[in-house]
Amino acid sequence: MTVTVVVGNPKPASRTLQAGTALAEKLTGAAPDHVIDLVELGPGLLGWGDEAVAAAVKTVQESALVVFASPTFKATYTGLLKLFLDQFAGGTGLQDVVAVPLMLGAGPGHAMAPDLTLKPVLSELGGTCALPGLYLIDATWSEGPELADYAERWKPVATALMALR
Amino acid sequence: MTVTVVVGNPKPASRTLQAGTALAEKLTGAAPDHVIDLVELGPGLLGWGDEAVAAAVKTVQESALVVFASPTFKATYTGLLKLFLDQFAGGTGLQDVVAVPLMLGAGPGHAMAPDLTLKPVLSELGGTCALPGLYLIDATWSEGPELADYAERWKPVATALMALR
Amino acid sequence: MTVTVVVGNPKPASRTLQAGTALAEKLTGAAPDHVIDLVELGPGLLGWGDEAVAAAVKTVQESALVVFASPTFKATYTGLLKLFLDQFAGGTGLQDVVAVPLMLGAGPGHAMAPDLTLKPVLSELGGTCALPGLYLIDATWSEGPELADYAERWKPVATALMALR
Amino acid sequence: MTVTVVVGNPKPASRTLQAGTALAEKLTGAAPDHVIDLVELGPGLLGWGDEAVAAAVKTVQESALVVFASPTFKATYTGLLKLFLDQFAGGTGLQDVVAVPLMLGAGPGHAMAPDLTLKPVLSELGGTCALPGLYLIDATWSEGPELADYAERWKPVATALMALR
Repeated sequence: MTVTVVVGNPKPASRTLQAGTALAEKLTGAAPDHVIDLVELGPGLLGWGDEAVAAAVKTVQESALVVFASPTFKATYTGLLKLFLDQFAGGTGLQDVVAVPLMLGAGPGHAMAPDLTLKPVLSELGGTCALPGLYLIDATWSEGPELADYAERWKPVATALMALR
Repeated sequence: MTVTVVVGNPKPASRTLQAGTALAEKLTGAAPDHVIDLVELGPGLLGWGDEAVAAAVKTVQESALVVFASPTFKATYTGLLKLFLDQFAGGTGLQDVVAVPLMLGAGPGHAMAPDLTLKPVLSELGGTCALPGLYLIDATWSEGPELADYAERWKPVATALMALR
Repeated sequence: MTVTVVVGNPKPASRTLQAGTALAEKLTGAAPDHVIDLVELGPGLLGWGDEAVAAAVKTVQESALVVFASPTFKATYTGLLKLFLDQFAGGTGLQDVVAVPLMLGAGPGHAMAPDLTLKPVLSELGGTCALPGLYLIDATWSEGPELADYAERWKPVATALMALR
Repeated sequence: MTVTVVVGNPKPASRTLQAGTALAEKLTGAAPDHVIDLVELGPGLLGWGDEAVAAAVKTVQESALVVFASPTFKATYTGLLKLFLDQFAGGTGLQDVVAVPLMLGAGPGHAMAPDLTLKPVLSELGGTCALPGLYLIDATWSEGPELADYAERWKPVATALMALR
């Protein structure tokens, strides 16, 4: 079953990408099949019809589980990530995809952002948003237990839902 | 497996109760085991330690799936429902409960309320909030296909998650 | 001009009350005219038509500025506060009232709650919600500069809007 | 005093632009000084340091009132608008700007989006978000009274706050 990480950080090869990849691996027991670093898609994201963007959308739609990873800009996901999400069809664009919201931020004050701002968009696209949003501190997440604890807690749910596909 | 409906309408035996019961039945294939009409708990909800309230909390925690049904007051769930949710432990109070947010309103303008206001509270309590919020028009829901369509779409997800318990 | 503090803490005479009172004083330069500790209204809040509740509603509606102060329960305002807000008319219940959302919590993780959960309810009631939500750490707020800094920043806005009344 | 409209529709010269311009005019009694159709800024929005983008940011910051107008994509503002908002400094980027959230959508179901999704971002940037979000139906807004009623209701608030600048 295909597992994908979508990364909405304007800086390529970011800590966001590393955290998203680690989360996908912990949740599924294997490295993700695809890591889509959205910044590489460039200006094609600003319109409709770009081939590379369409291929990325298709990869996401054919995945059983997708981690949507974003840094926290202005207390919510980045414009870059939203540009990509705007390419999906409302209601069905993420149908039968287990969509996991992950955000990284500089401090704890924006911890509610994944559940209150990113998850509703994934839900609007028809994704199966069964896991709560995960918020990590960008500078220190790799040293703490939060990501592993979350993955251990929610892996059975993710596994059961991926099996429906 | 136990299935429960929690009803947050200050009017007893409301349309909210009927819709919540219908949703539980459509999602699981059987009438719910318990229907908790919160208004019957009365002033015991205003403090901590009331026996009937504690029994209701326990019933919810021991359920595999719970529909939380509320009319829309001021573009969100009622104070009555929140009083009851305040009785649960943060993070774990709804652990391993498939928690389904349902709201009824007079018009379509508050359709985002279940996903943006009720679901985050259920998620904060540790519930498995895998199904999107359902919003129904109170006067006409029983004549339209919305509830049945939603139940058909999400029954496999609910079934898979109840089996984890 | 009348200034009121509404306190949604189920514990009477709480730190929430103290913080709400301090905020009203810093914003307006005088002690508030009314402090409504909602827990004192008791079971009258569970229905409609209670005289003491109606008087409290009237006091709020006749105020130029009202601080709505709540502890953070389940990442949002309390059921007690929402019970009271459910007593107001949608769209007009807080018309021409400068409504200030204040929440206190144990840690920084729920800092987005006043703006994302409490303010929308006050706005739905027609209040003039010109000030951002203020979130304070309950155990330490009185030692830090946050409340005073906020009041200094937003006092001119509050003053200009109170003068419209 | 400078008044500006920011338009987040990927289609140039959209109905969103027309509605934003009409709202600015009704609220202030004059045509807006600047209308920034973000799609014209193009790929410069994807990075940092573009001159035209920097000039647009400066225009907004020097305005007394700005209407932020967006179509509703996936139940919230567009990625295009968020790209632009990501260019502002958190906390101070919209300081002393009366920031008015306006969204247009195909149907009534997303009416809560301006208050629950767009306004919090403007507030995070330090804007004075005293007016409630306005949601209009894109195909019919020019025939209905909603925009004019809103402007009449909130013009005194906007005027009082612009005078503080």
